[in-house]
Amino acid sequence: MHMKESPDKKTPQGFFFSAAEAAIKKPGRNDMALIFSEVESAIAGTFTTNTVKAAPVRLCMQKIASGRGQAILVNSGNANACTGKQGMKDARDMVSGASKQLGIGIGLTYICSTGVIGTPMPMQRVLPMIGPLTGGLGNASFEDIARAIMTTDTFPKITSRQIKIQGKQGTIAGICKGAGMIAPNMATMLCFILTDIAVGKKALHAALKSAVGKSFNRITIDGDMSTNDTALIMANGVLGNSQLTAKSADFPAFQKALDELTYELSQLIVKDGEGATKLIEVIVKNAKSERDAEKAALTIANSSLVKTAIYGNDANWGRIMAAVGYSGVSFNPEKTDVCFNKVKVVKSGVMNNKDKEATEEMKKKELKIIVDLHAGKASAKVLTCDLTEDYIRINAEYRT
Amino acid sequence: MHMKESPDKKTPQGFFFSAAEAAIKKPGRNDMALIFSEVESAIAGTFTTNTVKAAPVRLCMQKIASGRGQAILVNSGNANACTGKQGMKDARDMVSGASKQLGIGIGLTYICSTGVIGTPMPMQRVLPMIGPLTGGLGNASFEDIARAIMTTDTFPKITSRQIKIQGKQGTIAGICKGAGMIAPNMATMLCFILTDIAVGKKALHAALKSAVGKSFNRITIDGDMSTNDTALIMANGVLGNSQLTAKSADFPAFQKALDELTYELSQLIVKDGEGATKLIEVIVKNAKSERDAEKAALTIANSSLVKTAIYGNDANWGRIMAAVGYSGVSFNPEKTDVCFNKVKVVKSGVMNNKDKEATEEMKKKELKIIVDLHAGKASAKVLTCDLTEDYIRINAEYRT
Repeated sequence: MHMKESPDKKTPQGFFFSAAEAAIKKPGRNDMALIFSEVESAIAGTFTTNTVKAAPVRLCMQKIASGRGQAILVNSGNANACTGKQGMKDARDMVSGASKQLGIGIGLTYICSTGVIGTPMPMQRVLPMIGPLTGGLGNASFEDIARAIMTTDTFPKITSRQIKIQGKQGTIAGICKGAGMIAPNMATMLCFILTDIAVGKKALHAALKSAVGKSFNRITIDGDMSTNDTALIMANGVLGNSQLTAKSADFPAFQKALDELTYELSQLIVKDGEGATKLIEVIVKNAKSERDAEKAALTIANSSLVKTAIYGNDANWGRIMAAVGYSGVSFNPEKTDVCFNKVKVVKSGVMNNKDKEATEEMKKKELKIIVDLHAGKASAKVLTCDLTEDYIRINAEYRT
Repeated sequence: MHMKESPDKKTPQGFFFSAAEAAIKKPGRNDMALIFSEVESAIAGTFTTNTVKAAPVRLCMQKIASGRGQAILVNSGNANACTGKQGMKDARDMVSGASKQLGIGIGLTYICSTGVIGTPMPMQRVLPMIGPLTGGLGNASFEDIARAIMTTDTFPKITSRQIKIQGKQGTIAGICKGAGMIAPNMATMLCFILTDIAVGKKALHAALKSAVGKSFNRITIDGDMSTNDTALIMANGVLGNSQLTAKSADFPAFQKALDELTYELSQLIVKDGEGATKLIEVIVKNAKSERDAEKAALTIANSSLVKTAIYGNDANWGRIMAAVGYSGVSFNPEKTDVCFNKVKVVKSGVMNNKDKEATEEMKKKELKIIVDLHAGKASAKVLTCDLTEDYIRINAEYRT
């Protein structure tokens, strides 16, 4: 599925970009990139909860405690995961090389990698590119960075928001890559968000955590979780506003803009899901708790049988009922309703004789599955895509 | 994948079979069957843990408390699941019709259904077949019953074991159906085991539970769990041995034969997994607990990325490491080894440079994935198959 809308590409002040080709996996495209803020910034991050964490993830997790940063070095083509002590050394060498040439402390340079797991980083090709990257700052756009981090993505993912903070026009912009989403071998989801709004490190972390919880943590392509998933946000304060805290009058507007931005990026990832032909929103309503709602929605969204039925335009609600049934949430099947878009196919747990109308809905490119459990007041929404022969082909052939 | 071996089909004494065509989903094959013991028997069962349970499952769970049974009525083509109060009435009507004509108490007649979810049982075609089924007992073989319960299965699944009990030759025979395995819409796994050995109801239940725990509960095709999964074992004692209890000298031999039989039936289900081209054994060794070993093995076996890689003959061990990483078990990635059959591809968490040898192993029809966590002494084995374009096609097209 390709995006038709032209993406929003405003860039916040005070950030500079460069990209270079190190031919990490193969030649012919930029596969390294550098993001640099002209001043030291607040930074926050969220990382994969997979026990198997790539070397750059482990390094970032150490650095992020300070809440300070100025540069992000990133590569695609190699995840630097399951690479042992050598992998940690390689990640450190990349950081120290870039820091030295940028003239900043190594604690201020972050590193992210995405690509194949288990192959040593080709340092003989990577290290010589650090000079061109630091020297070339300003030669690339934020969108160029979005392109350089692509693996099996079919389009770059970028968007931005502008909001008035203390009378000044602040900008938040974000890029991400997914596609082999939550796909460990491609090791996978990276997101970088930049803003010129001054935000305190605690508030920045809280805002990112909240936004990611309802966006990137509520999308799924295949249920597999990556070793490299990372979202970083850098706030350099070049706008000149007085620093936002969680109690600032403008903080809710900042949070809202960030929520929208991460949700939009999440949608782009799902739309570009491997082999996907449809965007599916799974909404579970009136669950006993938000955790139950999220669990039921994720179970439906991860069900291969639900996803293949949708691919086949089959309004096969039995698979949805069964998925909720094994999700482990508390509900009474005989009180449950299921809708495809606005067509109620299940009423109080049984067939509602709307198969014809439902089959029409199934043909649309965007489908809402709404499950009303009538068990409480909590709800959750999860984004996913259908499961197709192309997913199998892409993943059976990716590495070889 | 089709079985080449000719299956073992000995039948225990004192059981009679019949099959009939009710054209429940479509005409052209037997879709109803009856199993009858000439004498009242001990019976035990295990059932789906899905909250959404089909009407016949709910009925069986009520009956099984008595531990007594004599007849099993079964149909394919319709799961009688998500059919509300009418579905319960239909299941009860089928049971009472058969019981009356067999001249036994309704408590002794069990009922199982497999097929599409959410469609009312076509009682106008089902009820008239009860007469021919009860009147025709002895006209069909146990293998004919295995055929009558097939849905998307490509071959009937049957096997048997013979063991000496108190100097007499006892027989245990079993049939099952799977294919759309753990596939809620096909609502799915049914297994019937019959023996002429006399076994007490407590011992029978314990033996079945233990056997199922290491066979049917350790296979997965797509991770979806059915609303209808049922395994029933009936022991009619026609052999004339003195009843076995868990303390009998012969009980371990009975348990062993039952374990082997259920494991063999499980293998047949996986070999017939929808679209499968390979049988995969996932073995997790030296985990902290058996629960950890089982959890890690099931997570690997359910990973779409692992299953597509194996389909593509790609020795993509990174996906296996990542799956263990998100399985939630306690382990140190840097101590973990991974083998494909006898080829060690990962040693202490990093690449062992055996890609060429591993790629040769990947081409075989049967593959062992052995993950050694070096974290304890427990192990578990799970059976699964690869994920192919045919799985997508079968499941995108099944109902329509």
